[in-house]
Amino acid sequence: MPVFPGITQLDLTGPHEVLSRVPGVEIDLVWKTLEPIRAQGTGRPGLILTPTATFESCQRTDMLCVPGGSGCIDILNDDEVLAAIARLGSSARYVTSVCTGSLILGAAGLLTGYRATCHWASLPTLETFGATPVAERVVIDRNRITGAGVTSGLDFSLQVISQLWGSRMAEMAQLSLEYDPAPPFDAGSPRVARPELVDAMRAAMRPLNEKRDAAIERAAAKLRRPR
Amino acid sequence: MPVFPGITQLDLTGPHEVLSRVPGVEIDLVWKTLEPIRAQGTGRPGLILTPTATFESCQRTDMLCVPGGSGCIDILNDDEVLAAIARLGSSARYVTSVCTGSLILGAAGLLTGYRATCHWASLPTLETFGATPVAERVVIDRNRITGAGVTSGLDFSLQVISQLWGSRMAEMAQLSLEYDPAPPFDAGSPRVARPELVDAMRAAMRPLNEKRDAAIERAAAKLRRPR
Repeated sequence: MPVFPGITQLDLTGPHEVLSRVPGVEIDLVWKTLEPIRAQGTGRPGLILTPTATFESCQRTDMLCVPGGSGCIDILNDDEVLAAIARLGSSARYVTSVCTGSLILGAAGLLTGYRATCHWASLPTLETFGATPVAERVVIDRNRITGAGVTSGLDFSLQVISQLWGSRMAEMAQLSLEYDPAPPFDAGSPRVARPELVDAMRAAMRPLNEKRDAAIERAAAKLRRPR
Repeated sequence: MPVFPGITQLDLTGPHEVLSRVPGVEIDLVWKTLEPIRAQGTGRPGLILTPTATFESCQRTDMLCVPGGSGCIDILNDDEVLAAIARLGSSARYVTSVCTGSLILGAAGLLTGYRATCHWASLPTLETFGATPVAERVVIDRNRITGAGVTSGLDFSLQVISQLWGSRMAEMAQLSLEYDPAPPFDAGSPRVARPELVDAMRAAMRPLNEKRDAAIERAAAKLRRPR
């Protein structure tokens, strides 16, 4: 799992917790260096996460899983990281993401011609990378498995366990995590949330999303040029 | 939020992500020292979490939120940490926990006479600390708010936001986190999981739970003695 400054930590920590319930699974947090990074956070700076491998030391992986977060904008502009992710993805058996991690996969050229999902507020932008955006919680297209926004990482990783180790292993993980969700409101998706809330959220995200769109345009233009 | 070796990281990172969506919220990870600790993990040692305050430097908090995990057994045996948690809890406006964090609250004397919940596999043991175990996802009794196992931390923290900042703030957080859960199986609680799975999980947890029970007995006996 690549980790980076400004990551949405739950995009990473959710699947990390779920996948760790499978005996023998080993997960590395991979970044340029082993220095601790700060996740996205309001007010007090966000959670400190510590990489366990570098892109240089991690030459291949069975499964690449890319988390998202506002920090993904800097990654979309970072050719060094995109090249490392493209390299890891090209030999991985499974190429996966949670939330806006799919934009990073797209910018690395790993979603061209695939159906994929993303955080609802960024989903349509996947098309810029030649992917087909699908408004579902978890989207599986051949060996690409993508999850929607943040908390979808739980459903995503249970689906991954089910695909790789069978449904009984996934059910055991779900039971150990007491994943029997009871959200107090019906507000978790623009499909069900009150339109006023969706409009307010879109307005609040506009400055960030304008930066995101510019980064996507640059990354997609580079993809179209032969390397 | 106290943090400790062998913590179930999602007990902490779930509420941390959700509560961080409220502007102005500041969350410290508190431990004896500022040295990084390792969360619970199979195979490769678990996620690295880094404390941002010590029990000495953190003299009070508006809300105490104690996560759980297999490492809670060592905390139940650690009078220094239990005293620090009792101190923080005595002046906090809200005393809360996720998963087996409620056992730590109980051992610190903070749940005596309160209704509370816990991970399903540990719920009955709350009674040893004079609490009333309640098999619900989130239990609110006066200023005590407790969540059930691991993933309940999401529902728990949305309920906390709703109580403290109103339902609109909670709905906005839920929408930004795309918390519209779709578990692939109906296995997240002993209420709905196949009995064979529940039996297998109980059997797998037995060695750990015997250590837990011994630690609970010792901690409860100390509580009953005047300090």
